[in-house]
Amino acid sequence: MRLRPAFAIVPVLGVLICASPICAQQKTELALMPMPAHVMQGEGQFLIDGSFGIGLGRTTDPVIVSATRRFLTTLSRETGIPLSGEANANQPNFTINTAGAVEPVLQLGEDESYHLVVTTTHVQLTAANPLGALHGLQTFLQLVRITPQGFSVPVVTIDDEPRFPWRGLMIDVGRHFMPVPVIERNLDGMEAVKLNVFHWHLSEDQGFRVESKLFPKLQGKGSGGLFYTQQQVAEVIEYAKERGIRVVPEFDMPCHTSAWLTGYPDLGSAPGPYQIVTKWGVFDGAMDPTRETTYQFLDKFLGEMTALFPDSYFHIGGDECDGKEWDANPRIKAYMSTHGLRDDAALQAYFTGRLQKLVAGHHKIMEGWDEVLQRETPRDVVIQSWRGQASLAQAAKQGNRGLLSNGYYIDLNQSAAQHYLVDPLSGDGASLTPQQRARVLGGEATMWSEFVTPENIDSRIWPRTAAIAERLWSPQEVRDVDSMYARLAVVSQKLEYYGLKHKYFAELMVKRMSGDDDPQFLRILAAVVQPPEGYTRGQLKDYQSDTPLNRLVDAVPPESDMGRRFNDLAKLIVQGKATAEQLQLARDWLVLWRDNDAKLQPLLGRSELTEELAPLSLNLSHTAQIGLDALDDLSAHRVTDAGGVAEKSAWLKDAGKPHAVLLDMVVPSVELLVQAAGKH
Amino acid sequence: MRLRPAFAIVPVLGVLICASPICAQQKTELALMPMPAHVMQGEGQFLIDGSFGIGLGRTTDPVIVSATRRFLTTLSRETGIPLSGEANANQPNFTINTAGAVEPVLQLGEDESYHLVVTTTHVQLTAANPLGALHGLQTFLQLVRITPQGFSVPVVTIDDEPRFPWRGLMIDVGRHFMPVPVIERNLDGMEAVKLNVFHWHLSEDQGFRVESKLFPKLQGKGSGGLFYTQQQVAEVIEYAKERGIRVVPEFDMPCHTSAWLTGYPDLGSAPGPYQIVTKWGVFDGAMDPTRETTYQFLDKFLGEMTALFPDSYFHIGGDECDGKEWDANPRIKAYMSTHGLRDDAALQAYFTGRLQKLVAGHHKIMEGWDEVLQRETPRDVVIQSWRGQASLAQAAKQGNRGLLSNGYYIDLNQSAAQHYLVDPLSGDGASLTPQQRARVLGGEATMWSEFVTPENIDSRIWPRTAAIAERLWSPQEVRDVDSMYARLAVVSQKLEYYGLKHKYFAELMVKRMSGDDDPQFLRILAAVVQPPEGYTRGQLKDYQSDTPLNRLVDAVPPESDMGRRFNDLAKLIVQGKATAEQLQLARDWLVLWRDNDAKLQPLLGRSELTEELAPLSLNLSHTAQIGLDALDDLSAHRVTDAGGVAEKSAWLKDAGKPHAVLLDMVVPSVELLVQAAGKH
Repeated sequence: MRLRPAFAIVPVLGVLICASPICAQQKTELALMPMPAHVMQGEGQFLIDGSFGIGLGRTTDPVIVSATRRFLTTLSRETGIPLSGEANANQPNFTINTAGAVEPVLQLGEDESYHLVVTTTHVQLTAANPLGALHGLQTFLQLVRITPQGFSVPVVTIDDEPRFPWRGLMIDVGRHFMPVPVIERNLDGMEAVKLNVFHWHLSEDQGFRVESKLFPKLQGKGSGGLFYTQQQVAEVIEYAKERGIRVVPEFDMPCHTSAWLTGYPDLGSAPGPYQIVTKWGVFDGAMDPTRETTYQFLDKFLGEMTALFPDSYFHIGGDECDGKEWDANPRIKAYMSTHGLRDDAALQAYFTGRLQKLVAGHHKIMEGWDEVLQRETPRDVVIQSWRGQASLAQAAKQGNRGLLSNGYYIDLNQSAAQHYLVDPLSGDGASLTPQQRARVLGGEATMWSEFVTPENIDSRIWPRTAAIAERLWSPQEVRDVDSMYARLAVVSQKLEYYGLKHKYFAELMVKRMSGDDDPQFLRILAAVVQPPEGYTRGQLKDYQSDTPLNRLVDAVPPESDMGRRFNDLAKLIVQGKATAEQLQLARDWLVLWRDNDAKLQPLLGRSELTEELAPLSLNLSHTAQIGLDALDDLSAHRVTDAGGVAEKSAWLKDAGKPHAVLLDMVVPSVELLVQAAGKH
Repeated sequence: MRLRPAFAIVPVLGVLICASPICAQQKTELALMPMPAHVMQGEGQFLIDGSFGIGLGRTTDPVIVSATRRFLTTLSRETGIPLSGEANANQPNFTINTAGAVEPVLQLGEDESYHLVVTTTHVQLTAANPLGALHGLQTFLQLVRITPQGFSVPVVTIDDEPRFPWRGLMIDVGRHFMPVPVIERNLDGMEAVKLNVFHWHLSEDQGFRVESKLFPKLQGKGSGGLFYTQQQVAEVIEYAKERGIRVVPEFDMPCHTSAWLTGYPDLGSAPGPYQIVTKWGVFDGAMDPTRETTYQFLDKFLGEMTALFPDSYFHIGGDECDGKEWDANPRIKAYMSTHGLRDDAALQAYFTGRLQKLVAGHHKIMEGWDEVLQRETPRDVVIQSWRGQASLAQAAKQGNRGLLSNGYYIDLNQSAAQHYLVDPLSGDGASLTPQQRARVLGGEATMWSEFVTPENIDSRIWPRTAAIAERLWSPQEVRDVDSMYARLAVVSQKLEYYGLKHKYFAELMVKRMSGDDDPQFLRILAAVVQPPEGYTRGQLKDYQSDTPLNRLVDAVPPESDMGRRFNDLAKLIVQGKATAEQLQLARDWLVLWRDNDAKLQPLLGRSELTEELAPLSLNLSHTAQIGLDALDDLSAHRVTDAGGVAEKSAWLKDAGKPHAVLLDMVVPSVELLVQAAGKH
């Protein structure tokens, strides 16, 4: 046995990952995500039963003690075996050794490595820092699977450490407020996939979400009653720390600030009064960078908030200033002229420069979106890039550290594969010097919340964010998409044991739409549709912050697994590589979809939430019939005439457009079949 | 329009309850459970949208204020419409009027009536006592349904009040401990179906579950660390009170007390030492009724616990004394002889008499199981009957009040219909005088917890307990089983919006058993099996309190809905009343079941949790084939020969026995078909 990179295909007896129907094509490997740096497998397995017990050796770090308790709870949920944690501690078969304790405040760049050895009789987890041990516990939980002998973990030796030190998830609680339990369960999910930064986007035009004791009108007038008390903030920070997760707050300035200005209009650049914004988009409200009172206010505010949030980094936003209020204010224009600020960008740079000094004065390192990067930006400022690798590389070349979010915008309904293949060090990043590369700290998935609620946020974040977590943790060479999807399906299921609701609420929402009818036919439609990518939805309807998000587009995941699986099948078929069994499976699915409309259609009109789906359901039926015809032609080695292909293709093109803000994901695969049937 | 009893069939436009496949047979009526005493329907509906707002008039009772907030939260979950509760309060379209406030301690027999008027523009809820208003809010939530116009409630006038004042659910937290969140979500379920007594069975041979500050070894040695702090108890009582639910504690004495005796062996009748029992059954450990120190201890203990539990009633158990320890103790035998206590029953009666005086001394009314009823039992003692209506009637004749639990033992895997048709005033109860009938206070469902965990307790309690709740609330004449099942299916779904986990965990457990395989074929098997009735399970295997309960028998509901639906179909078929569509449906299901085994069988061996299901799956396939053959004969008007019928019937008899502690619920229906095919 020798250590080998984990991204090599590692066959494991008894574990066949078969999330796709194309089992024959599936690789058998450990369903770990993120994939560890090094995995060495042996023979046999470690059985988990009532005799399971953990020993902590000399470790007394409360973070480890608490993590062990949570570990046992999750393991119990995963297996259904009662594991109290009290029993068996005297004769442990799982030993944890760590040196030292977790720092009072988690720091960027701590040692997160761990060493996990599983034999048939014992598990040994070793880490220099307890943070590494937390990661090792999560790896162990992912290794657990059911076998003919019971729940077990394969014999394995893992040496693991992250590629990037900053692996984040941003949640925008400004546009839609997310109660503490929602935040906490997503922190659980982050821990499961080894993310270590929770970026808490706390202020927006639509809401200011933290209690300020110095400036109580911030939440009093700016939140509609939906904000976190300082006590709750402290609890979330502690909750995160127990999971090895830093909490970086963001207060977006000087724009996206309508909610601040509702309570404190004197901070603004227009005469006011301001109101909380209830729509989506970029709005004009902006702080006035030209008045000293603005900085006096912000200095006090920062004093309060930097004390509340212990992390060394403090995010001040800085994105998307439209400058309209500045341009419309003669006093501001005069100030710009007097001070040689030749445009709005220069005015914002001036503001950011002043703000950076205030942040530094409170002993924090400033972080901001791309726009804050200017020639004179101090070298310690961290740039979060929503614009892309080029922008990130520019920051690194200039000497600033940065992290990538472009490509990780999980609000845009992109596939896991798309996010997965985005690398902070590809594109312009690939040409950086080693020194410059070291300035690329990692990345963050960003959950902007125009179209998410506490009910469906989990299904927007999970499981796709696990693929991003792998990108940021695992060796750069780990990038096999099929392997990723196979493992993602397993991780998605495991996340349920952590209390994530991505599957639960999706099902509940479909049931709700169905009223008292059996939702089985609606489920069949729901499984093959997904929302279009990008920002199209906001353009289709005049959404407001209190518009109910209870339609099928809100319920289904951003990516249709069934659509992808059928597409895999269709590709095999047109390549002539499909087995008879796979051909039959494709046919069975198409028949199911073709016949579903007749059963579903009579029900759709009975609910306001399903009425709009009638064309979608009908289209699916027609699409499936076209697919069946194409399969018939292919099977009979009969070439579809060109006219027929063109006609069908034109029809499919139309059917492929969004209906009820949903795409029929069977269409592209049927188009493949139709084209192939025309070219025999 | 005139008031009419709700149990008449009330057609409602747009609401077709179709939980069963036999839609043509279904009645259309409001899916209310318990069915109100009087319902009068009108035309039109009240729409629920973002303008929904509640006005409380002069009502300031904090219970109503809190109930209103929870009501809006549940309504939001039910509809997906954001309803903050703060908005629209100035222009309410839902007005609540109640006189007075809820008593500091809820009392038995308070006025729980309410009057609910829904017009197309306004809802008016009126109640003499806020407790009635709580019930009215729940009725409103049950009336909400999705229509082509959106979520709405039909125009209706309801006058409602309960038949019995004591409508309870007992949860045994002694055998398996249930954490506070489990208790709380079940209190939510109780509120939804208007149950008003939570009977908290707090001590058992297997555990003593409440913190005692006077006698800390009770929980210290008697709970394995699994107990409620006094703070938690107080929180649960407050939580229950906000939902109109009284909390009656039970400390079972003098038997079922091994856990007490583990910490305080001097209370026992044997030399000791005692240990917490880890098995199921009736055990010998019993308090010593002959020593004054026993009563001194209990007086102090009762002082502490009667202060902690404010309800006027205090349950002392008193069931199932086997008397073995008493018989084996010469000192106790001598005492009995000296004091003229001629047998163990007399000794227990002596103990109960002493205990009753202590309870009364702490200003509480004693409650106990049947055994505590003796000739000299004081008239105010309440008898909970686990033995049946005869026993209950005897208590009423003797002048004692009582409630029925026999017939409501929801741990016995009986059908909702069986529980539903048990009436406290049927059998011997029917012959009581009006005065005696008034002593029958109601009943309680009892959730004994040998085979339930926090994971599956919800599916043992819900939805069946809603049928018991209807029995105890609605007019005695409401007893149509088909109507009950149709409404129960709707209520079961609604309970998900309250956070009950009966569906969620059942699905999660099936997924867990399947490992990484798609659980779809296991689900098909799971849908048609159910555990056998009664206590058979405990006799099959040597269960202990820490035996994992993660098998299919633990996951599936106690009653197979699919099995019942197929049985309805089979009955129609053998009566010659089935439509062509129904015949086809029966055939489709049988084909599904016949063909499922081939897909499921290869997967079963891959998981220790599913291996045992192989014979069950195979039997289902054969059963279905026999059913299909019988359908063929019936369709062809061909009489199956007597030998064939006998052979198949014999095979079915064997297949109908439990495998893996599960019954194939298709078997009885196929037997019907086989017999019919032999008699053409």
